[in-house]
Formats: sequence, C-alpha cells, structure tokens
Amino acid sequence: MTLSARPLRLTTDQADFEPRFRERLHWSADTDAEVEQRVAAILADVQKRGDAAVLEYTRRFDGLDAASVGALELTPAELKAAFEALPADQREALQAAAARVRSYHEAQRRASGESWSYRDADGTLLGQKVTPLDRVGIYVPGGKAAYPSSVLMNAIPAHVAGVGEIIMVVPTPRGEKNPLVLAAAHVAGVSRAFTLGGAQAVAALAYGTATVPRVDKITGPGNAYVASAKRRVFGQVGIDMIAGPSEILVLADGSTPADWVAMDLFSQAEHDELAQSVLLCPDASYLDRVQAEIDRLLPQMPRAAIIAASLNGRGALIQTRNMEEACAISNRIAPEHLEIASSEPGRWEPLLRHAGAIFLGSYTSESLGDYCAGPNHVLPTSSTARFSSPLGVYDFQKRSSLIEVSESGAQTLGRIASVLAHGEGLQAHARAAEMRLKGGA
Amino acid sequence: MTLSARPLRLTTDQADFEPRFRERLHWSADTDAEVEQRVAAILADVQKRGDAAVLEYTRRFDGLDAASVGALELTPAELKAAFEALPADQREALQAAAARVRSYHEAQRRASGESWSYRDADGTLLGQKVTPLDRVGIYVPGGKAAYPSSVLMNAIPAHVAGVGEIIMVVPTPRGEKNPLVLAAAHVAGVSRAFTLGGAQAVAALAYGTATVPRVDKITGPGNAYVASAKRRVFGQVGIDMIAGPSEILVLADGSTPADWVAMDLFSQAEHDELAQSVLLCPDASYLDRVQAEIDRLLPQMPRAAIIAASLNGRGALIQTRNMEEACAISNRIAPEHLEIASSEPGRWEPLLRHAGAIFLGSYTSESLGDYCAGPNHVLPTSSTARFSSPLGVYDFQKRSSLIEVSESGAQTLGRIASVLAHGEGLQAHARAAEMRLKGGA
Repeated sequence: MTLSARPLRLTTDQADFEPRFRERLHWSADTDAEVEQRVAAILADVQKRGDAAVLEYTRRFDGLDAASVGALELTPAELKAAFEALPADQREALQAAAARVRSYHEAQRRASGESWSYRDADGTLLGQKVTPLDRVGIYVPGGKAAYPSSVLMNAIPAHVAGVGEIIMVVPTPRGEKNPLVLAAAHVAGVSRAFTLGGAQAVAALAYGTATVPRVDKITGPGNAYVASAKRRVFGQVGIDMIAGPSEILVLADGSTPADWVAMDLFSQAEHDELAQSVLLCPDASYLDRVQAEIDRLLPQMPRAAIIAASLNGRGALIQTRNMEEACAISNRIAPEHLEIASSEPGRWEPLLRHAGAIFLGSYTSESLGDYCAGPNHVLPTSSTARFSSPLGVYDFQKRSSLIEVSESGAQTLGRIASVLAHGEGLQAHARAAEMRLKGGA
Repeated sequence: MTLSARPLRLTTDQADFEPRFRERLHWSADTDAEVEQRVAAILADVQKRGDAAVLEYTRRFDGLDAASVGALELTPAELKAAFEALPADQREALQAAAARVRSYHEAQRRASGESWSYRDADGTLLGQKVTPLDRVGIYVPGGKAAYPSSVLMNAIPAHVAGVGEIIMVVPTPRGEKNPLVLAAAHVAGVSRAFTLGGAQAVAALAYGTATVPRVDKITGPGNAYVASAKRRVFGQVGIDMIAGPSEILVLADGSTPADWVAMDLFSQAEHDELAQSVLLCPDASYLDRVQAEIDRLLPQMPRAAIIAASLNGRGALIQTRNMEEACAISNRIAPEHLEIASSEPGRWEPLLRHAGAIFLGSYTSESLGDYCAGPNHVLPTSSTARFSSPLGVYDFQKRSSLIEVSESGAQTLGRIASVLAHGEGLQAHARAAEMRLKGGA
C-alpha cells in the first residue's frame, strides 16, 4: 500500500472556512474516568505504604522486579559510564547542546531572575528576593518517546536557577535502559536518578518515601497516567504544565524552499498521530509546491506512517488573503512552535502575540530549536501560549516580597491602612497599623 | 462567657516537640466529593447553555433575579458613582494605596518583565519576547469576606502588565453591593464588571457566554466552589493559585513591643477560624509577655470570637534555642507572611529561604503590607511558598522564545541537531536540519 499525506486544504475566503477551520483545530483533553480513578488509588496507596507500593506498581506496570526501591537507583557511576560508552559524535553533540542551552538560560536568569529592591522617599525598602527551589523532580518518559534532549531541557534550567537537588525518574520497562537518556542525565548534572515511571513515580516524588526524597516541584512530560497524577498532586508540589499534542504553525511568504517547509511540517507530524502541522500562506502555488514536496519526500521517511496519519487527520494548508491575515489566524491558534518562513521575518514578528517559540527566517528550522539553539523546547501547547510560557529558569525559582517600613514610613502608611482596614471591618489590622503611629493608638 | 485565646505553647527542646508541632501545622485541602460533583455539573451546564445557565444559578445561589446577564453588568458610571459617594478619607486612602501598589508593580515589571535578546558569535539571535495577556478575569468574593484591597491587588498588576481587558466578577447575594469594592474597581481601572459569583462565574469567564467574554486567565480567591471550579478549568485558561487559610509567622528576638506582636497575631487570626498565627522566639519571658498582651487585648476586639477560635485551634507560641533555629523552623513552614520582629532584621533575612512576603523590622506590620506598602497581598499559602510566588506582573504576562538562526549558525547547529535527532530516531527532525547545511542533504 502506498501512503499518502494530504493535509486539509482551505482558503480563508471560502464560505465554510470558519467551521472547517475550527473543526480541524479542535482537540479536547478529555480525561478518562477510569484513568482518573486508577491514578487516585495509586497516589493514595503510595502516600500510605511508600516504597512497598512503589515497588509493587513498578513490578506490575513495568515488569521490573527489584528487591527494594534503592536497587532501582541509578548511580552517578552508571550515568557516567553510559556517557563514556557513546560514540564520539553523540558525546560531542550532547555536550555542545548542553553548553548552548546553559548559556541561553544563564542570559535568561540575568534578564529576569535576579533579586531587586529600592527605597522610597521616606526610607521604606521594597523589593523581591528571588531564590531557587530546594529540590525538584524531573519526569522523563521511557519507551518509544524517550528523549535525551528533554533531560537537558528540564535539568539545565533547574541547575542554572541554583536548585539544590535534581531527582530524575525514568521508567525502564522490563529493565530496558536508554543509554542516551542516562548519558544526558550525566551531562546535565542530575543529582539522583531512579528507574521509576507512571503515577507511582509522581506520587513518590510528591509525597516522598523512605528512599525517594520528596520534591518541591515536578516537571516533564508523560502519558495520561502521569498527566493525571501531576494534576492531582498540584498544590502539594508545583508542576510545570499538562502538555497536549505537539504543534507547528508555519507562516510562509513563499521565499523559503518548499522542501524545507515540507520537512518542517513532517518533523512535527512524526512525533505522533495527534501532532498538528499547519501552513499558512497567501500564495496558492506555493501551497501546491509544498504539497508536491510532501508527496515526494514522504516515501523517504522511516516514520512515514505516523507522518501520514498526523497530516491527514490534523494537518492543514491554508491560503490566506495576505500575510497580515496569516498573522491574525496564528494569534487565534496560539501555536506551540511558530515558524516565520519569510525573507522579512522582522516585519511579521511584531504582529505575533501568542506563541511558545517563534522561529524567524528560513534557516531557523524548528529542529534546531528543539535540540541545540539554546531556548527551551518544553513549550505551551493547545493554545495555552495565550497565558503561559516556555519552561525556564523562572520555573525553578520563587519570589518573596521584601518590605522594611521605616519609622517615618509607618506614619504615612499607618493612616492609609487604618482607614482601609476599618472599611473592611478588620479592626486588628487597623490597630496593628495604629500602634506604630507616634503616640500610639 | 469570657473568651480566652491560648495558642499552643511549645519549646523545641521538649521531647514531644516534633509530633506536636507537626500536628499543629497540619492542614489538609481535602476536596469534598459532593462539591466536586456539583461544580462539574455547573461547569458543563454553563459551557452548554451559556447565559441561561448563568442566570439560573445566580437566581438559585445568590437569590438574584435578573432578566438577562447583561442586566447584571455594573456600568463604569455606577463604579464611578460608588467612588464619589465615599467619605473623603476612604477615597484618599484608596487612591494612595492604588498609587503605591502601582509604583511597586511598575518597578517589578522593569526588573523582571521586559523582553530581552542577544546575538551569539555567528549572528544567531536568541531571546524572549514578553507580552501581556489579552484578557483576564478577576474573581472578587462577596459577602463577609469582600475586600476592596483585593480588587486593587489583582487588577493593578494586570494593568501594569498591559492586559487589554480586565473583567471583574463579584457576587452580590440578594443584590447587596459593597460600595468600597465598586469604588476600588473604579480606582483600579477594571474594564467591565458583573455581579456574578460561584462556579457559574468561573465557568462564564473560562468558556465565555453571549454576554460574558472568555478570558485567558482567572485570578482571585473564593470559597470551596470557586476553588474547585478554578482547578477544573485550569488548562482551558490559566489560574493563579488555590489559596488555603491565611498564615502569619513572627520571628521575634524580644525587641518589638509585645502588644505590637500580639496585635499582628490577631490581625491574621481575625480573618477566619482556620487562619494560623505562629510566634517563634528564643526568650520564654517574651512569649509570656505576648500571651499577657493577648489576654489584655482580646476583649477589646470586635472579632474576638474568631480570633480566639483561630488562636486556640491553630495558633502556637514556640520557644526556640536561638534565632538560627527559629529561622530553620520558619523555612520548614514556608509561611505566607513572615515578620522579622527584630532590631537586626537584616541579620536574619538571608537565612530565610521560603516565604510569600518578608516583613522586616518592628515597624513593618503585616497590615501595612496588606493594604498599601506596595507589594502584592495575594501570596502563596499552605507551604506553597516552597515553589510559588506572590501574585505579580509576571502572572499577567507570558513569554515567547525568539530564535533567528543565521546561515552560518545553521551550519554549526545543524550538525549537532542531526546527530541528536538520529539518536532519538526522529529522522524528519534530522533532515530538516541537514537541508539547511551548505550543499544540502
């Protein structure tokens, strides 16, 4: 059977554009009641029985039989050995990627993650102290979606933030370890690592067991069980986000080689069948050329079946009236990855308000950003770029407000606070302010 | 009957300190299954029937009968009139507080909320673009806990961030409007306001109805129904946090007048019976003096019953070995409000890692911070200061990574990305990078 990939072809001036566009975009994170119930039971059990429960679920779900949770810990020596056993080009690529990711996140910390304060006219000090989290947990998926680059993208910002301890968990079904994941943990400087996965790993990190230390925040992607567990432990610990399928939106003015753009659409589609690749362009003939490149290149791809399923089920090539309209549609979608495949990317970038990451110009393929340009590849999906941000140093820091009111400041502020507190019927608040007034209250 | 308030008295060197301390700190945000189910039904109904459902629940829960949701909108003229009808001292206090809160949050935006970028050696541009959210919803509780100061603390950071539209909802049971809340909405520059509350208000903001516009994020405190609804719509929209009972922890070296500290403990306790006030001090005689002031001042307080219930049920006066130990215990608690009632607050502040806000020195009563010092009074509760931050300008902004790879940069980065992508079995990622290499691939 010959595979074909035919993304939905639309033009914004067709009469039924709006409903067909909406239908194609629709994705619902409906939670499965059975998954919810099983996860709730696993969390409660790990909270109650600790290591014993973790061991039991690991045996049942990962087919991994261990005498103790301690036996599931990967030693630093083992991580290092995995790194050293890699071919030289992989070792060097991992290190080069890590260095660039580190340097970008250091710039991020300097730009937006430092403590600050000032004194006002009456000597009162105001500011914020920025401090790293004490201990974080990083969930790394195992099996078919085991991505060493995700280890770097989660652990390095935590490191740059100054987190004291970074605990990695990664499931190893039937004991199968991914050497690149272990090597990445070595390169990224993970503090401890356990071959645990699923809701039981999330529970161990959130509540702590005799062996697995309790963390303050859990980041990293996972399957439906992991997502449900993270949502449930939120509040007990911090979490990053609940990721949906990955998405790319390409805005093209026709100046980028059509095969480059076709391959960029593939690189999102190859993640999984639910991934979404959308191309917006005012030039119908360019859309034809991209479709022709899709047809030509698809048979060359080892993951052609996944790519075809994704493009046929969720992909779209949309002809817009002009680039301005393409930008407006992009803002409605708020895509995770947004490529401006244009000879004048700086012209369109200011029009783009919502996106996880913006890739400017023909040379900036999403895959360069995924691995090694420097910025984080953990990005908001499913339109959440309307209100959330790439994973960053700020996710591994928290802020404490600093207030030092001078004796003189207490006179001015005390009078204001007293009026407002009485207005709210909170007399102790008012009295506490009034007591600091000269002459007392 | 004479009320008495006796916070639990402990010393860290008593044999059973640890279990008794833990027991006193314990607070569980156990969710009520019935509340959960009712909220799920309300959300689904509003999503399906929109305005009609919102009207029906408002009638049922708030005893408020309106012809349409539009009739529940408060006009800008009504907000302005509420402001103008206030006594002069309240008008001035609201404006003075708003000005200080605005100026603090402007400093916050300059310090940590601006876009940044740099070019690396081969001309590749990397950075982050910081943009405001388009539209946010602010939930303001009605009834007994209607706090105008909360309107300022939610709306002003949104304004400073540059949010386009700020939609306030506030329940007005049986039509009873709080003039200070309306006036604060005027002062803070809320764009639109509706007299809606409960899960139905959260649903209207999250999904949008014919009358209430859909927002990108919902902030602000509420009762169990509101908290449950916010947790459920998280992902569809952003939310700030799920707040637990309010807490204060005072570290005292004995240099602050004991009645000031007693009143600061009251000012937390008067919020509600579950609020927690804790005092840590190495000096037993100072703890005695604070207890004596509690006894003396309690009968003077209009909210004495709530204060007594809170202090008896959840309060503690703890004698520590020294100030260093007091700081260590404070870090375990990670309190929402942390007062350093000391003549040398700068000596202890660096030891304090986890707190929502730190109030330094005897003149800095928490109540000054609550109303008008400038920093936000929406702070992480229930130990979540371990991983989260005060509400701030950053909560109303989001970030998009910017990447513009130069032709020369694509040569270096392309080789690294290609190796790593092949290592992960993602060949389209590899090909997309290789196509940008000179000579192609």
